[in-house]
Amino acid sequence: MRAEIITIGDELLIGQVVDTNSAWMAQRLNEAGIELYQITSVHDDREHILRALDEAFSRADIVLTTGGLGPTKDDITKHVMCEYFNTQLVEDSQVHAHILDLYKERPNVLNSLTATQWLVPESAEILPNRVGSAPIMVFKKTTFGTLETVRTFSTQGTKFLVAMPGVPHEMKIAMSEQVIPYLQEKMGRENGGIIHRTLMLYGIAESTLAIQIEEWENALPASMHLAYLPKDGVIRLRLSTYGDATENEIDTQIEALKPFIEDYLIATEDLPLEAILGNLLKDRQQTIATAESCTGGRLAAALNAQSGSSAYYMGTVVAYDNSIKEQVLGVQRDTLIAKGAVSERTVCEMAEGVRALMCTDYAIATSGIAGPTGGTPDKPVGTVWIAWATPKGTEAECFHFGVAREREQITQRAVTAALVKMIKIIGRS
Amino acid sequence: MRAEIITIGDELLIGQVVDTNSAWMAQRLNEAGIELYQITSVHDDREHILRALDEAFSRADIVLTTGGLGPTKDDITKHVMCEYFNTQLVEDSQVHAHILDLYKERPNVLNSLTATQWLVPESAEILPNRVGSAPIMVFKKTTFGTLETVRTFSTQGTKFLVAMPGVPHEMKIAMSEQVIPYLQEKMGRENGGIIHRTLMLYGIAESTLAIQIEEWENALPASMHLAYLPKDGVIRLRLSTYGDATENEIDTQIEALKPFIEDYLIATEDLPLEAILGNLLKDRQQTIATAESCTGGRLAAALNAQSGSSAYYMGTVVAYDNSIKEQVLGVQRDTLIAKGAVSERTVCEMAEGVRALMCTDYAIATSGIAGPTGGTPDKPVGTVWIAWATPKGTEAECFHFGVAREREQITQRAVTAALVKMIKIIGRS
Repeated sequence: MRAEIITIGDELLIGQVVDTNSAWMAQRLNEAGIELYQITSVHDDREHILRALDEAFSRADIVLTTGGLGPTKDDITKHVMCEYFNTQLVEDSQVHAHILDLYKERPNVLNSLTATQWLVPESAEILPNRVGSAPIMVFKKTTFGTLETVRTFSTQGTKFLVAMPGVPHEMKIAMSEQVIPYLQEKMGRENGGIIHRTLMLYGIAESTLAIQIEEWENALPASMHLAYLPKDGVIRLRLSTYGDATENEIDTQIEALKPFIEDYLIATEDLPLEAILGNLLKDRQQTIATAESCTGGRLAAALNAQSGSSAYYMGTVVAYDNSIKEQVLGVQRDTLIAKGAVSERTVCEMAEGVRALMCTDYAIATSGIAGPTGGTPDKPVGTVWIAWATPKGTEAECFHFGVAREREQITQRAVTAALVKMIKIIGRS
Repeated sequence: MRAEIITIGDELLIGQVVDTNSAWMAQRLNEAGIELYQITSVHDDREHILRALDEAFSRADIVLTTGGLGPTKDDITKHVMCEYFNTQLVEDSQVHAHILDLYKERPNVLNSLTATQWLVPESAEILPNRVGSAPIMVFKKTTFGTLETVRTFSTQGTKFLVAMPGVPHEMKIAMSEQVIPYLQEKMGRENGGIIHRTLMLYGIAESTLAIQIEEWENALPASMHLAYLPKDGVIRLRLSTYGDATENEIDTQIEALKPFIEDYLIATEDLPLEAILGNLLKDRQQTIATAESCTGGRLAAALNAQSGSSAYYMGTVVAYDNSIKEQVLGVQRDTLIAKGAVSERTVCEMAEGVRALMCTDYAIATSGIAGPTGGTPDKPVGTVWIAWATPKGTEAECFHFGVAREREQITQRAVTAALVKMIKIIGRS
């Protein structure tokens, strides 16, 4: 069973909004055993939408659209769907009641535009949007579209179009609670389905890794596909099968791979580094704090992104200014004068300082030059010192992330390096 | 002049990677006066890529691809391009020399796979990739593709395909330094081009706004298009023209709009809130610090994302634990016992505490329940207190962001609310 996503909105095509919806939807479709074939972003434009629908239906059984369902003039998706499926808008009393309920504490939001939200295409099946005013519409496609250029595609079985709002949290709740269960029921859950296994590696170049595992990769059965996904210094190595191999077969291959990569392996599932670290700390009932200079709260934001992080993550002090490093974190003035803020001694004192201040088992500190300004010949942009304080002592390491990288990449590399080494230190303790 | 983007990679279609490249490229194309018509994400699959190229060339003059140029087996873009343009791979001595130089400090990375990176399609023009090993390839399309299904499109003028790596920082440097200048030179910079104006509003619902400005919107000339882009409580109102109106004409419309929306207007350009706040502080040579509980470093990460932020942003204390609120921020124990951590008194003491600790002009503090756990009947999930400490005193406000929102949205709404009000307070001072 094959699906495509069409995201509708001019904002995507002028770069005002990053399409984060598609990746999220792709994950949910994959988990449900539905292959996602293509993602297409189109303008809020009648002809463009009609053509994209036709092209998508020529390749896929299910087309999911997001966007263009708001109450304002630039939102035309509902009208175009009516044209494509040759139907008209009618009032829906259930959607009407839901919208009245949704806005009962904000009656001023009920107006002539909101009222257009309970007009729905007559031939569509309506699924509730629990958290928003735009209903989710399901169309069944058993005849051709309206364009002259329609292609001949199989009419074996019904094809489905699901139109959802583009607001991410509305789309997510709609997908999880309505759309995926609906599609699974209507189309029958396929057995086997898609299986992915991901290993996360750090500290090896992509091409070196590829050569190191070449023999193993060449011996893979045709039913399995290997992909290399490098990002911020971490390589995700993903082995996939699309219904042609069993979980056992893929796990056997993964076990055979491990001896080739054990020096670089940091996790055997595709989790954010902060989740791996969080799980380690939760299992051990230990705690951590951070003191950040160049990473400026990014390490904290990463650690906090996990629900339940307050059980193990005590907090951060972001201290740009030397006086704050001194007063809050207890870094020695002599250290700052003699060694500078970006130095082994300073970053160790920062880590030890915040570990004592927040009474934690572990602490990570960062101090570096994220650029684009502030570099010197002996400490060029990209120089980052990181320290890890533990119950057994403190270790520090100097990284050089600067070659041709921007501020954003440098801080992201520093966060990655900080988390990876903390995972390794706790893992071996 | 019309462009399309094709992003190539299975990782996009299983949701392992969010496509952030396309939005960034879209912005650069727009700035250069090149209209982006469609974005398409396809698999690392020969037929899929060939078909997508054909479809894109049937609509656009320029096709930009990213991805699939790495040295490993799953990267097939270069081979498919050779097939599409009926050419073959040959060694390129300049690319060879560049790669030797790139890896001169990491000779172990030079191996048989890296060596495939200096093989380039014979008919392609090669642009240098300053920061990576995969060269940027430009193909000129004056004849049809190889598929049987090729369509008839205009052969007036040459069409261009530009293949770039998918690694974001390599793509960004390639686009900025090579591809945009190349396209502008080859195709001639069009006059007029695309003009966008964006106003940012806060504190009004999308449909209420649409009714409030209905008369103005209805009177807009046909050459201009209005879009509503709501996100995290902020509405971006974008007025665009695609070469049919002048800057003066669009600015006149914007001035006519302002009286209808002045109560909600927070900026007249599309900037991140943290940049607006940063610019205000830089202009006034003032400083700010933050104390965060529920936003957990996100406020700091936002403020730090601006280069030069260290001039005005002194740092943050993320204090989940009450003992840290007490010891580091000086919140009174009596306050925490009598009022709780999520209370007006606590959040005011946090803001005043960090303002004193970091000796700043302003400070923002947040304390709330981001969920999914931790809610109580009188403080449900989504309750967030925010305080703004200023030289003239401290104000605080309680927000309820919880209705049907997840942890991530709640913290994002809190960051937005915290920044918006700080901008307003400083702006009126």
